Amino acid sequence: MDKSELKALLDKVANGRTGVAEALAQIQSAPVADIGYAQLDLARGVRQGAGEVVFGQGKTAAQVAGIVDALVAAGQRHVLVTRLDPQKAAEAHALMTCDASWDYREDARLAVAGGMPEPSGNGRIVVACAGTSDLPVAEEAALTAEFLGNRVERVWDVGVAGLHRLLAHAEILARAQVVIAVAGMEGALASVIGGLVSCPVIAVPTSVGYGASLGGVAALLSMLNSCASGVSVVNIDNGFGAGYQASLINHLSDRD
Amino acid sequence: MDKSELKALLDKVANGRTGVAEALAQIQSAPVADIGYAQLDLARGVRQGAGEVVFGQGKTAAQVAGIVDALVAAGQRHVLVTRLDPQKAAEAHALMTCDASWDYREDARLAVAGGMPEPSGNGRIVVACAGTSDLPVAEEAALTAEFLGNRVERVWDVGVAGLHRLLAHAEILARAQVVIAVAGMEGALASVIGGLVSCPVIAVPTSVGYGASLGGVAALLSMLNSCASGVSVVNIDNGFGAGYQASLINHLSDRD
Amino acid sequence: MDKSELKALLDKVANGRTGVAEALAQIQSAPVADIGYAQLDLARGVRQGAGEVVFGQGKTAAQVAGIVDALVAAGQRHVLVTRLDPQKAAEAHALMTCDASWDYREDARLAVAGGMPEPSGNGRIVVACAGTSDLPVAEEAALTAEFLGNRVERVWDVGVAGLHRLLAHAEILARAQVVIAVAGMEGALASVIGGLVSCPVIAVPTSVGYGASLGGVAALLSMLNSCASGVSVVNIDNGFGAGYQASLINHLSDRD
Amino acid sequence: MDKSELKALLDKVANGRTGVAEALAQIQSAPVADIGYAQLDLARGVRQGAGEVVFGQGKTAAQVAGIVDALVAAGQRHVLVTRLDPQKAAEAHALMTCDASWDYREDARLAVAGGMPEPSGNGRIVVACAGTSDLPVAEEAALTAEFLGNRVERVWDVGVAGLHRLLAHAEILARAQVVIAVAGMEGALASVIGGLVSCPVIAVPTSVGYGASLGGVAALLSMLNSCASGVSVVNIDNGFGAGYQASLINHLSDRD
Amino acid sequence: MDKSELKALLDKVANGRTGVAEALAQIQSAPVADIGYAQLDLARGVRQGAGEVVFGQGKTAAQVAGIVDALVAAGQRHVLVTRLDPQKAAEAHALMTCDASWDYREDARLAVAGGMPEPSGNGRIVVACAGTSDLPVAEEAALTAEFLGNRVERVWDVGVAGLHRLLAHAEILARAQVVIAVAGMEGALASVIGGLVSCPVIAVPTSVGYGASLGGVAALLSMLNSCASGVSVVNIDNGFGAGYQASLINHLSDRD
Amino acid sequence: MDKSELKALLDKVANGRTGVAEALAQIQSAPVADIGYAQLDLARGVRQGAGEVVFGQGKTAAQVAGIVDALVAAGQRHVLVTRLDPQKAAEAHALMTCDASWDYREDARLAVAGGMPEPSGNGRIVVACAGTSDLPVAEEAALTAEFLGNRVERVWDVGVAGLHRLLAHAEILARAQVVIAVAGMEGALASVIGGLVSCPVIAVPTSVGYGASLGGVAALLSMLNSCASGVSVVNIDNGFGAGYQASLINHLSDRD
Amino acid sequence: MDKSELKALLDKVANGRTGVAEALAQIQSAPVADIGYAQLDLARGVRQGAGEVVFGQGKTAAQVAGIVDALVAAGQRHVLVTRLDPQKAAEAHALMTCDASWDYREDARLAVAGGMPEPSGNGRIVVACAGTSDLPVAEEAALTAEFLGNRVERVWDVGVAGLHRLLAHAEILARAQVVIAVAGMEGALASVIGGLVSCPVIAVPTSVGYGASLGGVAALLSMLNSCASGVSVVNIDNGFGAGYQASLINHLSDRD
Amino acid sequence: MDKSELKALLDKVANGRTGVAEALAQIQSAPVADIGYAQLDLARGVRQGAGEVVFGQGKTAAQVAGIVDALVAAGQRHVLVTRLDPQKAAEAHALMTCDASWDYREDARLAVAGGMPEPSGNGRIVVACAGTSDLPVAEEAALTAEFLGNRVERVWDVGVAGLHRLLAHAEILARAQVVIAVAGMEGALASVIGGLVSCPVIAVPTSVGYGASLGGVAALLSMLNSCASGVSVVNIDNGFGAGYQASLINHLSDRD
Repeated sequence: MDKSELKALLDKVANGRTGVAEALAQIQSAPVADIGYAQLDLARGVRQGAGEVVFGQGKTAAQVAGIVDALVAAGQRHVLVTRLDPQKAAEAHALMTCDASWDYREDARLAVAGGMPEPSGNGRIVVACAGTSDLPVAEEAALTAEFLGNRVERVWDVGVAGLHRLLAHAEILARAQVVIAVAGMEGALASVIGGLVSCPVIAVPTSVGYGASLGGVAALLSMLNSCASGVSVVNIDNGFGAGYQASLINHLSDRD
Repeated sequence: MDKSELKALLDKVANGRTGVAEALAQIQSAPVADIGYAQLDLARGVRQGAGEVVFGQGKTAAQVAGIVDALVAAGQRHVLVTRLDPQKAAEAHALMTCDASWDYREDARLAVAGGMPEPSGNGRIVVACAGTSDLPVAEEAALTAEFLGNRVERVWDVGVAGLHRLLAHAEILARAQVVIAVAGMEGALASVIGGLVSCPVIAVPTSVGYGASLGGVAALLSMLNSCASGVSVVNIDNGFGAGYQASLINHLSDRD
Repeated sequence: MDKSELKALLDKVANGRTGVAEALAQIQSAPVADIGYAQLDLARGVRQGAGEVVFGQGKTAAQVAGIVDALVAAGQRHVLVTRLDPQKAAEAHALMTCDASWDYREDARLAVAGGMPEPSGNGRIVVACAGTSDLPVAEEAALTAEFLGNRVERVWDVGVAGLHRLLAHAEILARAQVVIAVAGMEGALASVIGGLVSCPVIAVPTSVGYGASLGGVAALLSMLNSCASGVSVVNIDNGFGAGYQASLINHLSDRD
Repeated sequence: MDKSELKALLDKVANGRTGVAEALAQIQSAPVADIGYAQLDLARGVRQGAGEVVFGQGKTAAQVAGIVDALVAAGQRHVLVTRLDPQKAAEAHALMTCDASWDYREDARLAVAGGMPEPSGNGRIVVACAGTSDLPVAEEAALTAEFLGNRVERVWDVGVAGLHRLLAHAEILARAQVVIAVAGMEGALASVIGGLVSCPVIAVPTSVGYGASLGGVAALLSMLNSCASGVSVVNIDNGFGAGYQASLINHLSDRD
Repeated sequence: MDKSELKALLDKVANGRTGVAEALAQIQSAPVADIGYAQLDLARGVRQGAGEVVFGQGKTAAQVAGIVDALVAAGQRHVLVTRLDPQKAAEAHALMTCDASWDYREDARLAVAGGMPEPSGNGRIVVACAGTSDLPVAEEAALTAEFLGNRVERVWDVGVAGLHRLLAHAEILARAQVVIAVAGMEGALASVIGGLVSCPVIAVPTSVGYGASLGGVAALLSMLNSCASGVSVVNIDNGFGAGYQASLINHLSDRD
Repeated sequence: MDKSELKALLDKVANGRTGVAEALAQIQSAPVADIGYAQLDLARGVRQGAGEVVFGQGKTAAQVAGIVDALVAAGQRHVLVTRLDPQKAAEAHALMTCDASWDYREDARLAVAGGMPEPSGNGRIVVACAGTSDLPVAEEAALTAEFLGNRVERVWDVGVAGLHRLLAHAEILARAQVVIAVAGMEGALASVIGGLVSCPVIAVPTSVGYGASLGGVAALLSMLNSCASGVSVVNIDNGFGAGYQASLINHLSDRD
Repeated sequence: MDKSELKALLDKVANGRTGVAEALAQIQSAPVADIGYAQLDLARGVRQGAGEVVFGQGKTAAQVAGIVDALVAAGQRHVLVTRLDPQKAAEAHALMTCDASWDYREDARLAVAGGMPEPSGNGRIVVACAGTSDLPVAEEAALTAEFLGNRVERVWDVGVAGLHRLLAHAEILARAQVVIAVAGMEGALASVIGGLVSCPVIAVPTSVGYGASLGGVAALLSMLNSCASGVSVVNIDNGFGAGYQASLINHLSDRD
Repeated sequence: MDKSELKALLDKVANGRTGVAEALAQIQSAPVADIGYAQLDLARGVRQGAGEVVFGQGKTAAQVAGIVDALVAAGQRHVLVTRLDPQKAAEAHALMTCDASWDYREDARLAVAGGMPEPSGNGRIVVACAGTSDLPVAEEAALTAEFLGNRVERVWDVGVAGLHRLLAHAEILARAQVVIAVAGMEGALASVIGGLVSCPVIAVPTSVGYGASLGGVAALLSMLNSCASGVSVVNIDNGFGAGYQASLINHLSDRD
């Protein structure tokens, strides 16, 4: 069942020609691969418009390799594995039996099997980060968005203590479909950008800081309380989540 | 300076024909009304694509009335005042001197001066809430989105403890450009909806609950840690913020 | 004093034929082995219907070995040692002088001396977990329940972001005497299962996650605030506690 | 669809004669009454073995009355409304149009429409509380359990600072199918009871205390960290939740 | 002992002509008025370069009046009473027996007995606040500084969501000896000002906000983690403390 | 100045024959050894009735050795060094130049230079701990008390889940001048002992536990909220502090 | 059974002439008055060396009156009721049927029925408080100690910001058997006193303060982390607890 | 643009001869070196009166070396790198290509490239610390202040538990322009010093302590709630921030 089939099915549901349960049953018949330690959702690409992404943290190298192999075997061309340290990445790659390419990016602690797709989407996603120490999270956001088919522009090291560095990129910000604002410490970047642009801003607090930063909680609270409208927030260090939602926004089409 | 003039200006900046500082100067020359206790940003509608919204909490009735009058005098046709209790709303209305209409919605604790605009936007925003007690926040989100020119569909009382109530609205959810998921207690609604739809989900934790809900912090943490991709979060009880960002998403156009 | 003797004694208390203090004295006369660093309660099996379980964390290998030896010497046939890392497990096994079998399960970080008993109990305990990373805690729950004489069914990797994976196991859930729901991150699994079944649900939050998961506190709060009735909660990562209480429930008999 | 019909349906599912989706559809066809502000789940009694319970907090008197009327109209004979203050209870009663009886219990802040059912269940539920100030929560637990068809024994004011008061009730505790331990302050009662009995203990922390009790969080944490096995915990002041789960446990039958 | 006498004494200490204990004894002989509920430090004006300030919160109107009378009787010409609500202020004024003037400022919840002194100090103190709701705290800071003999400039409603409002006051900020930055919600104002000026910035978090602002803790954490150097922080809503320290800074003279 | 001299001095102060400042000066003339990284208070033994104790954490081995040497050189016969890991203890011992004996106790992570004094004091101090894992903290308390000249009785592994183990030591508890109750997890031991004895109880929460024990905060809160009167609390894992205060209590004499 | 009888009994236990259970039984036979909402421990005076104290918070006026009447009827001559607001105190007094005197102290929110006993004890208890706002808690501590038969000296308003005010009372502090240090805000008084005296210090944090005082948690943490040895801590605002433990210390006699 | 040029420019702005935007443009034209991972603000020395300081934490040795080289190449004579562990410092030094001197101070975990400047400023900065374990943070503050051109006096190991050690340095404190008070545990040093001096006090909480010190949060809260006026606070362990602000205060000149 590809996406247009899915849409057709849902149209029938909307028109009353198919019941909810019947539709659900059809969707549920999509293959789920049970590989023991995981129930792989081979149809999620269909249901949610994106390929399966593997959360590497807490999984062994063998589990990562097994999951990538199974997804590729099921026809998934691009697979993203996040939160993967260098050693586990190397071990997983060695254990993989499929012949997909494997590109590990240490700065963002993620790997892409099968290469990046061509960019699509309505516009550009801008990823801005406050300091050099926030780069790993910012790169995770940027690469996730690229993996999901978006053009991305990076604006690095534009913390609010040197406001002119940020203002110098005003044009790039003004052209964005979505801005992802990545910052640790006091996280003020999200509010300042939120006041400058007229597109949605997704704020990513990072755990950069010490003492009363409380592992990123200070930045998180700051962003949740932003005095600028149009800002929403994801978990601390969750560059992936921001890139994913930004991609959803950048791929929306008129549906009504 | 209206929006197309602004766009033209920014195009010049992008093409190098106008410098950043020069552009900034032109934007800064937009009128700011200083009414003593507030610096009204009469041009924010221009810069951010939306009218000025007044945050009523912590302001006196006289201040609310004064700000609404000033905004209307400056040509703003629709003004939204949020977080306004019934008594202050009545007092502010009595003190207003402009002749804009005044519609107070007690369930959402907000007032609209000058009426609602016609809906525009690319599609529909769906607002879903978990329980009857979450209604005030959900209505704040829905009315904010309507105030900003969106078609809104409401899906009330679909908490995950009765999953079939939510599944019965699967079609409505599937048609949304954005879903706003409003829930208190454990806030699980955001994750479940996040797993069902392929559009962005904005989660609004509410302070509904008691004991270990810690005034909404439990729902907030739950939503920030959602296992579903595509979910971002706003502050506890911040229906306005969710409606505002949803509107930005629903009004995006291709810019690249 | 075996269990029936104990019951007889308590019946006498209930009928007034034996006083509380007298009964207490008889129970207190049960042997307590003082091995220096621990007061082994050799009669707890009697009083609470289960064998002594050793909490391995914070004890040295020598202490673990000494306690197991003492319990076996006192006639305990099956001994469970929880929270035991592989190295300490190996050291403890080497230091043991009794001839009980020793089965170390690395995935659940526990060891069973003397083998598993035959399953008894009124029905089945279902252990469900949200993701692959929750497996160690889920296995601790499952093996604890098996150690205490229960039939256990495992339902792995059924997080709510892919609801159909959970719904596919609806029959298994419906047959359970108790369900143990193990989840980290936002912990929504407990609420969704709580809404689906009519038996007690014991929720186990795990420390799986990062950032605002706060080491499992987010999942814990989520589960405590569950909108589904019939859910109670144990400590973060406390698979043992859930398995133990589930076993108590599964072995209840009519006493009135 | 009554409970035996439901069981028959699920048996077919288990035997493969009916598919999951088909079964789900049949269950979903159960009536849901949409009364505007609430989606009443008229079949929950069927699905979960208990009548609908109305959470009164955050609902208006009119909403409470409307929901009770709708449930009674749908054939529900007994309705429980929890977290209801005296004034709202009186107003709701005045607004009700059905002729069900109405018994408001101020000590437990709840109302029962339609009277209490006959007790059923396998044994007795014991509700123990630490101090006089914990009585409202303890009564909520006890009355909930009675509403759900259980015989309940109350053991009041047995805090651990006067251990002999608790030990004097050892026989009653020993006969329980489930014990509900209600305590504020340091919540030690749960651990002490957990060490005395061989049945499941459901601990209810209360917000009784001041200062570092942090509104019940101290008791909650204490109970979650109980050194006694067999203890699980519900939300602060959640007497209802404890009574509900205790009833589920007390009504379990062999299903395997 | 006036300030020059004190300096002379300390010079002797520094030169070894008077011992520490002897000096301490002389200072201790300064009069302390024991009026039962308070030990008034009549010499603090001497020791710390400022008049006694009375913290009104938690004191009765009679206690406030008694303390003001005693201070005036001891020769203190200007007395500041902070954290005083209107009713208690009126009662205290009615109870006062001295003939000092009494000026109550409801917006800042403080009273000045004996009028304001002439401004002195090296330069100007700028008080900037983010929103209209922060005005009470900002006025407390500004009036405290004026009470202690400083010229103060107020810059109101310059939150970072409308950056141009702040930039329009760049000249005023650049001329300050000290800037007091008052903000609730995410508190980003402190960081942005900290990056713009080359003088010390004292940040005052306010309790303005809701939900995850946690009563001002979000702004407090944000300010403590400021990425701008030169920022220090006082307690939430502590306008007095900021005004006091700013005055100390503005009155420093070369001492070396 | 020995203790009786100090008492004589203070008597003069009380009778008005010596002034406060004069007395302070005499006390201040007691030698303070400035060894660069520390100001050793060679007279604290006099002022507070105990020898100087060195807090080893955060100090280098060289600093520890230097401080012990200086104290011994100044005539201190017994020196206690707490919070010392084995390696630093060995290094410090090797670097010491004085000839005092050195006894390192790994279980309590402390060292005693110069041996233990003879016991004195009014009675006995009982140290009770809940579990084997609490032993290091309990031993720190017991050895500190012995170092300060007290007879100590140890009651190990008497957690409240096995109440009879504690009750078996009722006589020992009843004879104590002070009881130190050491417990992690839920810390209920303090309340239960507090209800059994009529002497002061000093509660020591330990960091034993996991998950919601929050590093000992759960036990700390539990102990602070004890429903038993007569219980006070020291910092988490602060066995030293408990032993020190217990010694003060055990050495009190009639002074009035 | 009076105190000497109890001691005789325990001596027999210690000598092996009476078993633990037998002794327990004798103690348990002490009268417990069950008055419905409370189990009055009429023998606690015996077991713990003090009269029963009634915790007034959370009890109705009728319950308070009933408990006082029952205690007086059982021979208790002095009864203390703490945490009693003026209105409830008046109502309770009106409802009392016994003829004991009734002295309500509004500043300390407590009542004494039956008058104060003669002071006994080994020495004096000094209660010191930091500010006027801390007086209610300090008086609760002082009156509790007096109720329990102690001579008390009060040292009011000696916060560390004016160190000489505290030093002026050095003699009084030096004569104490125990010092109770009561302070809100940063709670530094406990550490400074702890460094000055050689007797035990019981620190009582108060909820005086605002903002980051977090309802007294700041003072509590400060006191728990005191750099002075000899300090232990009770719950926030728990003047009663401090007075009670101080009395236990002041009444200790040599028992060995 | 040097500082006098900047002042001239701002004077023109103040006089209306140059607009804000124009001035901003001139400042923005100051060189920003984009070296990929960082946007170096080569003109910050101009704008804020201090050289660029590099925050070493979270940067690689290569990044540190590259930034130092770029700053030196741009004419910066003195560069400070903070939060640098020994190994990274050595690696960075080896990778540097400029010929600036390199002085690494392990006790303060910082490096100075290009040597220290001559002291300037109005007076002296006193850095006081409570204990030997606080030395690293205190040295960071002291060296930062020296790097920024200040005379610094160090007062080590003067915790309030031995008050006379602090009082012995009263003269040094009395001569300060600013005092930096560094303390962990309960952080009382800031309040005591705040009560003794008449200059501003900057408090630095440290993470020294254990248990309820919560990584320095206890000291932070204590300092924020100081009962002494004139105290402001920086982040936990932020010696740099305190030294920086102290330097700003010590270099203020009359500007009005």
